[in-house]
Amino acid sequence: MNRITSLFNIKYPIIQGGMIWCSGWELASAVSNAGGLGLIGSGSMYPEILEEHIQKCKRATQNPFGVNVPLLYPQSDELMEIIIREGVKIVFTSAGNPKKYTAFLKENGITVVHVVANKMFAQKSVDAGVDALVVEGFEAGGHNGIDETTTLVLVPTVRKITDIPLIAAGGIASGEAMYAAMALGADGVQIGSRFVASRESSAHDNFKKAILSAGDGETQLTLKKLVPVRLIKNAFYQRVKEAESAGAGVDDLKELLGRGRAKLGMFEGNTSEGELEIGQVSGLIDDIRPAAAILQSLVDEFDDTAQRMRGMNPL
Amino acid sequence: MNRITSLFNIKYPIIQGGMIWCSGWELASAVSNAGGLGLIGSGSMYPEILEEHIQKCKRATQNPFGVNVPLLYPQSDELMEIIIREGVKIVFTSAGNPKKYTAFLKENGITVVHVVANKMFAQKSVDAGVDALVVEGFEAGGHNGIDETTTLVLVPTVRKITDIPLIAAGGIASGEAMYAAMALGADGVQIGSRFVASRESSAHDNFKKAILSAGDGETQLTLKKLVPVRLIKNAFYQRVKEAESAGAGVDDLKELLGRGRAKLGMFEGNTSEGELEIGQVSGLIDDIRPAAAILQSLVDEFDDTAQRMRGMNPL
Repeated sequence: MNRITSLFNIKYPIIQGGMIWCSGWELASAVSNAGGLGLIGSGSMYPEILEEHIQKCKRATQNPFGVNVPLLYPQSDELMEIIIREGVKIVFTSAGNPKKYTAFLKENGITVVHVVANKMFAQKSVDAGVDALVVEGFEAGGHNGIDETTTLVLVPTVRKITDIPLIAAGGIASGEAMYAAMALGADGVQIGSRFVASRESSAHDNFKKAILSAGDGETQLTLKKLVPVRLIKNAFYQRVKEAESAGAGVDDLKELLGRGRAKLGMFEGNTSEGELEIGQVSGLIDDIRPAAAILQSLVDEFDDTAQRMRGMNPL
Repeated sequence: MNRITSLFNIKYPIIQGGMIWCSGWELASAVSNAGGLGLIGSGSMYPEILEEHIQKCKRATQNPFGVNVPLLYPQSDELMEIIIREGVKIVFTSAGNPKKYTAFLKENGITVVHVVANKMFAQKSVDAGVDALVVEGFEAGGHNGIDETTTLVLVPTVRKITDIPLIAAGGIASGEAMYAAMALGADGVQIGSRFVASRESSAHDNFKKAILSAGDGETQLTLKKLVPVRLIKNAFYQRVKEAESAGAGVDDLKELLGRGRAKLGMFEGNTSEGELEIGQVSGLIDDIRPAAAILQSLVDEFDDTAQRMRGMNPL
């Protein structure tokens, strides 16, 4: 029991990150059924698709679950309406201004968490009245902050300015890392990459296999002139890299990116020409397991680390 | 007591990183006198200067100290001769091939540690017979690995392939972060930036003040086409950034860098036109204190964190 388990009424302070193309109702409900908090990632969903996922998730679990809404898409108003109509009680917002929906959602009885990557947005979110923050470091997959602050530095940086519950994200795929994050001042963790490589994730099998194959140094934060995103270094990445190195501007990069790259890679399984968004911690992931087994490992490793650290007396 | 304190015969498993222009005999001896391991940074020293620093350090402390030798300069043979002649017992090598000196130094009774930033160099170092490794993450100041792997990911990545003692570096300036690094599998920590902002560091006062002023997001890994280095975002950095964004090549960057930029910034105190190499954790540093007081805080914070974590039962 701690502030995060109380806030969401869950067993373990472990949140499965809402991710485009990977976290639908099947993954979210599996995580929630196993005692964590599952999030449906609405960033890749049309409104009617989100509605369907929420309805299926409600049938698949009696436990709390939530929806992540990236605010950089034009349809967020519509998504929020569906979320309220369907009675979802937890919303994680990201990639936008925390003032936009926080008060509105809270008036509707919803617990609101905003994802931040630096101190300024943390302060803005606190001012907007969020219930908790996800503090997401440079090592995370998907869209990242431009400051490149790592989880090890970001958690204490944000902890310095606020007492509200903090959920550390980026670089966490084990109970050791979860324990480390909590030593730094976090109250819980949000885990993405490790759950992409789960049986219930809707990522294409080719993408899951690419995650298992990726070693250390095989992802990089890229497309910084557009929206920074951490990608596996495949053929598409190499072309972006070459263009950037030669001084490509925003328009050149937009043209190179085109449309539907993320879906092509992560959902349709074209691992050479698609965008494969994943965290640096993919280098430490080497199996695809059911979400419940992943959660159990996190808990066991956390306990083992606690025991090891209790026996340690290095000073 | 642990493997790192035993290896070096020191009180605390805390190493002060050897840094150009900042860590001469005064800082190294202060850290060693306070129970850590002080390192003279020879990267900015002519051979006769290193000799003088070693001799002064020997007079200033009875405790073990070491020398860091970056292997990217042509004079390393000469530096090693001086180190052996002066009877230094601990050498940290970095920025080069660990096979170059490890066997030779060990034949001379010297404990050898190599600094690595990825799994491949960790394995090479183990094969070369080093006694321990510094595993240095993306958040560190100075010259960095090209893979951008953060401390949170790097420590367990290297721990997976070797049982030898690991010293975590990058992003560590507090006892909480030290505790987190040890939860991840490190046996000790190497701390740079926090000791640059110490009374005994030979950094120029202007540089020390620039560290205190730097907030989160105010350093960035740059000059990746030459040798990646993390810099405070000053006027010189901005020019490099613009050139890189426009597609500057290796020769353009070499010309822009010129000679003596690091000395100009860090030692002579020109904080707009010099290179100011510092870690991301500078955003968390807000005072200049004696090295002994810094060590004491690290130890106290480590103990407080251990106690807090013992009382925590989130699962």
